[in-house]
Amino acid sequence: MDTLRDVFELNGFIGIETRAVEPGSSLLKKGETSKEIYLLSRLQEVGHESDTPVEQRLGLHFDLTVPLSRYVVEHSGQLAFPFKRWQIQKVWRGERPQEGRFREFVQADIDVVGEGTLPDHYEVELPLVMVQALERLREYGLPKATVHANNRKLSEGFYRGLGLTDIEGVLREIDKLDKIGADEVMRLLMETCGASRDQANACLELARITADNGASLVEQVNALCEIHHVDDDADAYALLKEGLDTLTMIVDEAHHLRPGAVIADLKIARGLDYYTGSVYETFLEGADSLGSVCSGGRYDNLASSGKRTYPGVGLSIGLSRLVSYLLHTAGAEASRISPACVLVAVWNEENRADSNEVAYRLRARGIAADVAPTAAKLGKQIKYADKLGIPYVWFPNEDPDDDGADEVKNIVTGEQKRADADTWTPDNEYASQAVRLPAAGE
Amino acid sequence: MDTLRDVFELNGFIGIETRAVEPGSSLLKKGETSKEIYLLSRLQEVGHESDTPVEQRLGLHFDLTVPLSRYVVEHSGQLAFPFKRWQIQKVWRGERPQEGRFREFVQADIDVVGEGTLPDHYEVELPLVMVQALERLREYGLPKATVHANNRKLSEGFYRGLGLTDIEGVLREIDKLDKIGADEVMRLLMETCGASRDQANACLELARITADNGASLVEQVNALCEIHHVDDDADAYALLKEGLDTLTMIVDEAHHLRPGAVIADLKIARGLDYYTGSVYETFLEGADSLGSVCSGGRYDNLASSGKRTYPGVGLSIGLSRLVSYLLHTAGAEASRISPACVLVAVWNEENRADSNEVAYRLRARGIAADVAPTAAKLGKQIKYADKLGIPYVWFPNEDPDDDGADEVKNIVTGEQKRADADTWTPDNEYASQAVRLPAAGE
Repeated sequence: MDTLRDVFELNGFIGIETRAVEPGSSLLKKGETSKEIYLLSRLQEVGHESDTPVEQRLGLHFDLTVPLSRYVVEHSGQLAFPFKRWQIQKVWRGERPQEGRFREFVQADIDVVGEGTLPDHYEVELPLVMVQALERLREYGLPKATVHANNRKLSEGFYRGLGLTDIEGVLREIDKLDKIGADEVMRLLMETCGASRDQANACLELARITADNGASLVEQVNALCEIHHVDDDADAYALLKEGLDTLTMIVDEAHHLRPGAVIADLKIARGLDYYTGSVYETFLEGADSLGSVCSGGRYDNLASSGKRTYPGVGLSIGLSRLVSYLLHTAGAEASRISPACVLVAVWNEENRADSNEVAYRLRARGIAADVAPTAAKLGKQIKYADKLGIPYVWFPNEDPDDDGADEVKNIVTGEQKRADADTWTPDNEYASQAVRLPAAGE
Repeated sequence: MDTLRDVFELNGFIGIETRAVEPGSSLLKKGETSKEIYLLSRLQEVGHESDTPVEQRLGLHFDLTVPLSRYVVEHSGQLAFPFKRWQIQKVWRGERPQEGRFREFVQADIDVVGEGTLPDHYEVELPLVMVQALERLREYGLPKATVHANNRKLSEGFYRGLGLTDIEGVLREIDKLDKIGADEVMRLLMETCGASRDQANACLELARITADNGASLVEQVNALCEIHHVDDDADAYALLKEGLDTLTMIVDEAHHLRPGAVIADLKIARGLDYYTGSVYETFLEGADSLGSVCSGGRYDNLASSGKRTYPGVGLSIGLSRLVSYLLHTAGAEASRISPACVLVAVWNEENRADSNEVAYRLRARGIAADVAPTAAKLGKQIKYADKLGIPYVWFPNEDPDDDGADEVKNIVTGEQKRADADTWTPDNEYASQAVRLPAAGE
């Protein structure tokens, strides 16, 4: 979370935090997920909860987009648009928990929201910020991430050019490709979306196109249009062209700024979401079963208020799933439990003040220090440090009559030497702060 | 939150985060607050919520102590005791919102929990960590904080020595002193706790004792015992003496480590909480109406599991109230909206890549940078930076044929000079990152 925040703020995103609840009326707006919301009631309302219509009750937010939408409308008078915000918070969904799927989890979102208009350069900048963030997590064992981008207008234009009309239906079925395979999608396109075998086939051919540069993308798409008679003077083609231009820009710009970070992948559909242009999913090398770890897209109307509309582009990292993958599959481990770098030993309780003094001096220089809980045998004090992963144990000078030097022992390497609490510094390798305990939600 | 976390980790506290919900059975254990919990239900349960007994439903936690208690029991096998943890999270209470009182707010807690036993030096160390944390907030305008400490055993021993038996009742009434005044408390002690006028008077006299050193504390308490015939060979006095010894230690040690940070104040009762020894409240200079901003105490049984008990000491900062005070009363202001230190201007959209390049180079050196949203007139770009509080606007070299220098303007001071994105650094005063927008919960 610290790493992501750091990257987001380096890129000028403003951090906001919103309350955990939104009115039922807002939460119920957004398609399928609405079945999974948690509603709240006060203890004294027990037995009467249902007297209040669901729309008027409060529920826990299930994403960070609904809250952003409310936030932007509420604060539009004070915001400078385009408004770039990051937000890392818990969200809740009443799903059946299973591997990689939690009822409480953390999302890390960035969005940029315009007032009335929003330049399309953000459609390449935002996925690149996410790639930069995921890149920084590689030091914890995360594999290389690649954003797969598509554009709804491109797909819709093509489908319409084929003569199909149930665009939402087609997108919904294409979205299932990775899960159920081409044959099954083919069958569904014909059975539920009114597609002929040829039309369904063409949809699948489009979905097979990938490209890491604009020229190859344009060539492949135009070739397919020719085969399937999507004429370049038709309205449908104009729509397709609009999406193709944006996607071409994205792939080429991304290639210029960060080669290999973003590719065009025309099977990306984000079937159930309300995107109107670019759509993104992000996959980790060698982690296909994990699915997309960072998804999003462009929406023309995040919110509207009177005549004002707020178009936006946003992506969201499912952070809990990512951390779960890091710990359970990628083999990441907490390097230590305690943030303390030093445990100051205590020779006897009467001299605890001396040990406290050492700890104070270390902390004053930013070195996290703990003091032994009791003046137990030294072996026991060292064992306490070891159990907490604290790399150094500090021995205050025991006898004020000798030459007066403290000593510090690195209990990982065994090295012990004289030290002064006002000048000593840990070796870099052992200095780094705090790794957290496993979240208690598990 | 960053500041508090920093202080907690410097002192070797381990950060944990627990899920937002606990079972109703745990939430209902803890006295009066239980009336204020929020229960959860899934959308599909609407109309049937009450079929499930409240104890078996999930509710949002109303403090961070109930979750800690569960956490310690669940993870006791993996924890090194004494377990020092910090936790900063939202909590929820179904109260009527009013000034300084929210239904969703953030608490910042530190606790140290032992297994079976817990040394009493933590009873002076923990309040001092909180003082250190609050001290760091003074740069945002927080007044000086003083911890007022008492000890339940001292009070109980004295009350019993007077012949009173309804100890909880007396503590509950004494707790109201600041709110309703001495006369009213006197009346309540006589009417509801079975105290005679003399006994009630003695309780009030004890509550008037304050001391900034152990000697004065002991002298005042013993003088009062003599007047009211609390004999020093009675069991009651032994209990009083135990509390007095601890409180004396706390005041003297605190005075040694951080003079003026902790005083003995025998009216502190924490009437409704389950403390068994030391109790603390913390007041800000000149902010009496705010009440205690950081409270806590020692409890002999945070939790128990079979034969095991887990005694602890903990304090909790009501962070939302504190921030509310800082913003609305102490006059703190966000110094800027955006975390970006630099806005890179864009001369025209064709050259956006040059501006991106500058931003990349700045960010690579940890300088947060944003790029102008559009190639608008320069005045408009500067206005955008100004509205976000971004102190510097960067002008990439417009004409590659001239001598090639970029320039950067401090829009606060008006100073403009040549700069190189690989070496330039902001003046310290303008470099500091991110102040957040007001929380959207308001």
